[in-house]
Amino acid sequence: MDRWVRMKSVGSRRWVIAEGYIPGESVSSDPALVSHETACILNAGDRDAAVTLTIYYEDRDPVGPYNVTVAARRTLHLRFNDLSDPAPVPRDTPYASVIEADVPIVVQHTRLDSRRAEIALMTTMAYAAD
Amino acid sequence: MDRWVRMKSVGSRRWVIAEGYIPGESVSSDPALVSHETACILNAGDRDAAVTLTIYYEDRDPVGPYNVTVAARRTLHLRFNDLSDPAPVPRDTPYASVIEADVPIVVQHTRLDSRRAEIALMTTMAYAAD
Amino acid sequence: MDRWVRMKSVGSRRWVIAEGYIPGESVSSDPALVSHETACILNAGDRDAAVTLTIYYEDRDPVGPYNVTVAARRTLHLRFNDLSDPAPVPRDTPYASVIEADVPIVVQHTRLDSRRAEIALMTTMAYAAD
Amino acid sequence: MDRWVRMKSVGSRRWVIAEGYIPGESVSSDPALVSHETACILNAGDRDAAVTLTIYYEDRDPVGPYNVTVAARRTLHLRFNDLSDPAPVPRDTPYASVIEADVPIVVQHTRLDSRRAEIALMTTMAYAAD
Repeated sequence: MDRWVRMKSVGSRRWVIAEGYIPGESVSSDPALVSHETACILNAGDRDAAVTLTIYYEDRDPVGPYNVTVAARRTLHLRFNDLSDPAPVPRDTPYASVIEADVPIVVQHTRLDSRRAEIALMTTMAYAAD
Repeated sequence: MDRWVRMKSVGSRRWVIAEGYIPGESVSSDPALVSHETACILNAGDRDAAVTLTIYYEDRDPVGPYNVTVAARRTLHLRFNDLSDPAPVPRDTPYASVIEADVPIVVQHTRLDSRRAEIALMTTMAYAAD
Repeated sequence: MDRWVRMKSVGSRRWVIAEGYIPGESVSSDPALVSHETACILNAGDRDAAVTLTIYYEDRDPVGPYNVTVAARRTLHLRFNDLSDPAPVPRDTPYASVIEADVPIVVQHTRLDSRRAEIALMTTMAYAAD
Repeated sequence: MDRWVRMKSVGSRRWVIAEGYIPGESVSSDPALVSHETACILNAGDRDAAVTLTIYYEDRDPVGPYNVTVAARRTLHLRFNDLSDPAPVPRDTPYASVIEADVPIVVQHTRLDSRRAEIALMTTMAYAAD
């Protein structure tokens, strides 16, 4: 029997990232070094995960759902920069996000900021709601 | 029925950020790039959140409460730099903060540090007390 | 009786790091400053920990187990760059990891990124699964 | 009755920081900008906290206890650089730490790294053991 089939799923079905901010500026046009924020999602289980994101703002109603699939036994490093349906995430604008899935997943948040010649990085595990 | 009305609140009513330090120096006067610390707060529920902050110091009594409202289904990226009532947060001084709300919220802490020509960033989810 | 013998173990047997990315580039060849990602593991207990890592990717099956031992009352700062058996971790490629042990351990994740002349750092506690 | 007297204590009695590394190099001799690692501790309760740290290494027995007091309703940003009794923490050496207190506290970990002309920062909440 395959080792990965036995791997049980891990994590929570609901995650929150309270920080969100995509700098509009980047000194580099290299895709790896353009300023970006990412939700790194792991689906360690053996069923595909249907994941929905909702984006919250300071001065307008939340936008969503954004729908993505994270296949079984796969990770997805989802850039908020790339979200487009129902609407792109504006640059230079504070936001927050709630990430929900139909199976347990794990979510970690990162920003790479290249508004200056050098890059700055930050990361944290998202908050696992019950 | 509106999707957001059904969104249940998420998080905890009490959060702690043990690190706090606003660098007094910044190489930039661009508001986005001035050295700052932020409490990013998400209120995903359908009731406004009355939020109070208390600031703790190394060598004097705590100061507070600072009162802010985070509207229902909104985020607020609150800069400690901007707190003024009952007293501003001094620069170049270690502090810590306790953040309490009357409904569940989620709190994430960040610092943007521009004491040098380049920026440095750090973030972490705050500690969710029961 | 020795103080350390009484130290009880602390942590969890299963941890997740959803972010993973080893930059292929480094401006420095100083081993301390080469771009790297690390799983910092503490085994505070009095029994050696048999630790296994599994690496997840976006577009292929997971790879593992990678086996390491963390001795009793020791820490190990394990660089993902150094993993080789069953296969090295490719550079410039998103991944995630699950870290399991037969005794409680604590895991913290860091990246030092030296793709530019200056270094960038990020860290977070890993997610402790039950 | 004083507001602070009613403030109940918050946190946990045992915390773990699995990462530890004090860079031996710093481009600046300004105390604020010398490379350092810090355990930011908040004691929000109304009793002083007797705190002990134990430092774990990769290749030798743990060292400790280091004893510090964090007064009631105070924070302490404790630099690992400053620990001296029973022994200083060596530079350029991986370590980990367990922080224990006789009352609930909250612990957050940070590193300021100034091995290059610019500074890099990282932070995370420590792991709260039961």
